[in-house]
Amino acid sequence: MTEPIHDEDLLEVQAADIPAEDGPHPDDRIDDERHDEENRLKPEYLRAVRDALEEGEKGEVYDLVEPLHPADIADLLELLDREDRALLAAAITDLMSSEVIAELNDHVREDMMEALAPEAVATIVEQLETDDAVQLIEDLDEDDQQAVLAEMEAEDRIAIESALAYPEETAGRLMNRDFVAVPEHMTVGGLIDYLREEGDLTHDFFEVFVVDHMHHPVGTCALSWILTAPRNVALTDVMKRDQTLIPVTMDQEEVALMFQKYGLISAAVTDDDGRLVGQMTVDDVVHIISEEAGEDVLLLSGAGDGDINEPIREAYVSRVRWLIANLGTALVASLIIAMFGAAIEKLVALAVLMPIVASIGGNAGTQTMAVSVRAIATNQLTRANTWRIVWREMRVALLNGATVAVLIGIATSLIFNPMLGGVIATAMIINIAVAGLAGVLVPVIFERLDQDPAVASSVFVTMITDSMGFFAFLGLAVASGLVSAA
Amino acid sequence: MTEPIHDEDLLEVQAADIPAEDGPHPDDRIDDERHDEENRLKPEYLRAVRDALEEGEKGEVYDLVEPLHPADIADLLELLDREDRALLAAAITDLMSSEVIAELNDHVREDMMEALAPEAVATIVEQLETDDAVQLIEDLDEDDQQAVLAEMEAEDRIAIESALAYPEETAGRLMNRDFVAVPEHMTVGGLIDYLREEGDLTHDFFEVFVVDHMHHPVGTCALSWILTAPRNVALTDVMKRDQTLIPVTMDQEEVALMFQKYGLISAAVTDDDGRLVGQMTVDDVVHIISEEAGEDVLLLSGAGDGDINEPIREAYVSRVRWLIANLGTALVASLIIAMFGAAIEKLVALAVLMPIVASIGGNAGTQTMAVSVRAIATNQLTRANTWRIVWREMRVALLNGATVAVLIGIATSLIFNPMLGGVIATAMIINIAVAGLAGVLVPVIFERLDQDPAVASSVFVTMITDSMGFFAFLGLAVASGLVSAA
Repeated sequence: MTEPIHDEDLLEVQAADIPAEDGPHPDDRIDDERHDEENRLKPEYLRAVRDALEEGEKGEVYDLVEPLHPADIADLLELLDREDRALLAAAITDLMSSEVIAELNDHVREDMMEALAPEAVATIVEQLETDDAVQLIEDLDEDDQQAVLAEMEAEDRIAIESALAYPEETAGRLMNRDFVAVPEHMTVGGLIDYLREEGDLTHDFFEVFVVDHMHHPVGTCALSWILTAPRNVALTDVMKRDQTLIPVTMDQEEVALMFQKYGLISAAVTDDDGRLVGQMTVDDVVHIISEEAGEDVLLLSGAGDGDINEPIREAYVSRVRWLIANLGTALVASLIIAMFGAAIEKLVALAVLMPIVASIGGNAGTQTMAVSVRAIATNQLTRANTWRIVWREMRVALLNGATVAVLIGIATSLIFNPMLGGVIATAMIINIAVAGLAGVLVPVIFERLDQDPAVASSVFVTMITDSMGFFAFLGLAVASGLVSAA
Repeated sequence: MTEPIHDEDLLEVQAADIPAEDGPHPDDRIDDERHDEENRLKPEYLRAVRDALEEGEKGEVYDLVEPLHPADIADLLELLDREDRALLAAAITDLMSSEVIAELNDHVREDMMEALAPEAVATIVEQLETDDAVQLIEDLDEDDQQAVLAEMEAEDRIAIESALAYPEETAGRLMNRDFVAVPEHMTVGGLIDYLREEGDLTHDFFEVFVVDHMHHPVGTCALSWILTAPRNVALTDVMKRDQTLIPVTMDQEEVALMFQKYGLISAAVTDDDGRLVGQMTVDDVVHIISEEAGEDVLLLSGAGDGDINEPIREAYVSRVRWLIANLGTALVASLIIAMFGAAIEKLVALAVLMPIVASIGGNAGTQTMAVSVRAIATNQLTRANTWRIVWREMRVALLNGATVAVLIGIATSLIFNPMLGGVIATAMIINIAVAGLAGVLVPVIFERLDQDPAVASSVFVTMITDSMGFFAFLGLAVASGLVSAA
């Protein structure tokens, strides 16, 4: 190892291969002529780009787009429609950097890549970091994947193929294969010298992994500890042995929870033999956290992937499935109503009021279900506290049921008659209590069966609250002698 | 500045005040006798802790809990009920570190703090970093806040009071006041020497901020650049000038989107005069990202805060409001049904089938609404592409409507009669189309009115799809001459 130069007077020397300033000035980003106060591109700016594209003014387009950050260029592409997107990409080829590609929405990227020749895609892929490259390639059709891989350099191809060998959404797919690992015997000073020598540590890194001779991780050093420790200290004395290891097979949802729970910045990924094979860094994990936390609302509503850039056919297929499932559950409710057809004929007020009982029950069930699904997803509702939470939700449900029952009971008594008021109030309490129970138990049962509780809970809870709403109300109306069923 | 010691043989010297290994061995964390494969505490482990607590075996409790990571101790406290929580906290006082307190769920922490005397809370607060301390104090009642602040050292108190002066959920509240800022004229070597000298840079940091003489940030240096650059290079040549500045008044949701969009690890927070006053780091922001992305499902369902640790009374108040609002919208639907009472008396099949039209419409509306709310929250649906998205959703709605209409139309024709089949099919298409339109426009309108679209969209969309479902179906039945209204 060479001794680092210590003469502070040689200041200007060697400054050449240092990352220089890039992109726009910070003040350009917010509240400028292109962004609104929430950092979204302004409609007027977009209109200017669109107009220039349509008039074929490539130079003007370039001047408009050039000051943007790569993440903003990605946003701009997403905001445009397909035709304008292709025109824009053609007008700003040298601004279409790997950062832009990496920041693009999956659907938009896939759509744009499918329009390119395999060699062109291969050239883009080779510029990306492995994790971003894998993300791009995994979305392509099997044939396109093979065509692109065939065009690539052997080394890059092997890295990507080994990532693709792991299942989707696991650490093995998502990890970065570039990381800094050093042997146990190094000192802080030795490490700094080593890092200075290895010029091409291109990617930012936040921790150095210390490994034994079998390449098993034995500890990690945050860069801030290395910078504040004396040169002569052994890394084994600075490093933290208590590290969180991510197995290659771990699902991305678990990885995201690990990063959140332990406040990690980066973590070592290990293979089945415990060897260090990659790292995950928090800047990649934030996307997963946001995706996993945001997908519950889409899954619960039956909107599938729920991305506004998803092709219409895919959106149709994923949504219509749930509408058809819902048709099935609505038919169950209809059968229950049909059982009481004679009672409705005698007292049409029953038909007027029955949707209220079903609707409020459905609403109460959805509230409890949303709370339970989030609690399960964040590991807060587990086998260890299920019954405590069920009991808690039952108490909330009884309070809610009592309140709503009093209101609807009084209103119905005044408008129709006290007997009908008593029937609807009782039915409401029963249905809200059932909704509370179903709202917790349905997601919990799906979880125990190793199914994602967000996917199918909604259909079942709605079926239960609809059917129970109609059954309790119409059944009580008959049982109480208010109307006869026959 | 002192010259750092370079003799690599002095290896063992000074290793004393270096962060040593702490906590359990990594392999203890997953798949051990305490955790299941998803890193949740096992029910058997919890039962053992609970049994020991109830038998008053403090020593046994301590031995059981001692190997846990602070974040797991926090999880354990959350999983227990109130009484056991208090018993546990008393049994493991010296394990109740600031990390445990910082990791605790807000409601659980608040509940535990309220049981303590102000001096005890003040002692805990002084151990926390400012951002965590503020989070703890802001949840207390005004009186308790004052009592705790009065017990604190002046310096800590002032830091917390200045944070509390900013509105909740803004960068000024959430930022960390500890950061490393250095003047422009420093070199890489000078910076390293400075960092080695300043022993008590307790908190991990990931970037060094370079400031001018007015304390305005002019650039940032990632620690990895500092470690890989020669000592004699000027910081102004290594630093990135293109930095994202967070104004103190920025809302946490915007901060979270900034970190995601630009892949930030830390960012400078500046006051109104552009001076550097704090930093936000990604490990704090991940909690915000998860919270903001996860809250949509809770808000849309009307479950308010939706935390399973929320006190029952608060959960009741936040949920019953929406049930009562929903009662109002259900009454609107009932009024529409009442208009067609005579028709229902003549043909009770209308009462049997009408909930199907309303229910599927509601479902389709919820799907579109969930997609729109997420797209607005992630800045993907803006003024610049609203009409493109409306048109997209209308096309999906028409495809969905046609599919469901064919199914229900055929089934109704076979069971009842073709005329009724035609009526329900037409009503279904109308209602799903209306649902698609309302599902986008209602959230968009709330957003334009500066309201959170997740909060109130549900009530409006449901009212529209319910009313339209009943009105289209019953109205068409009468208009088509299937039954007479009078």
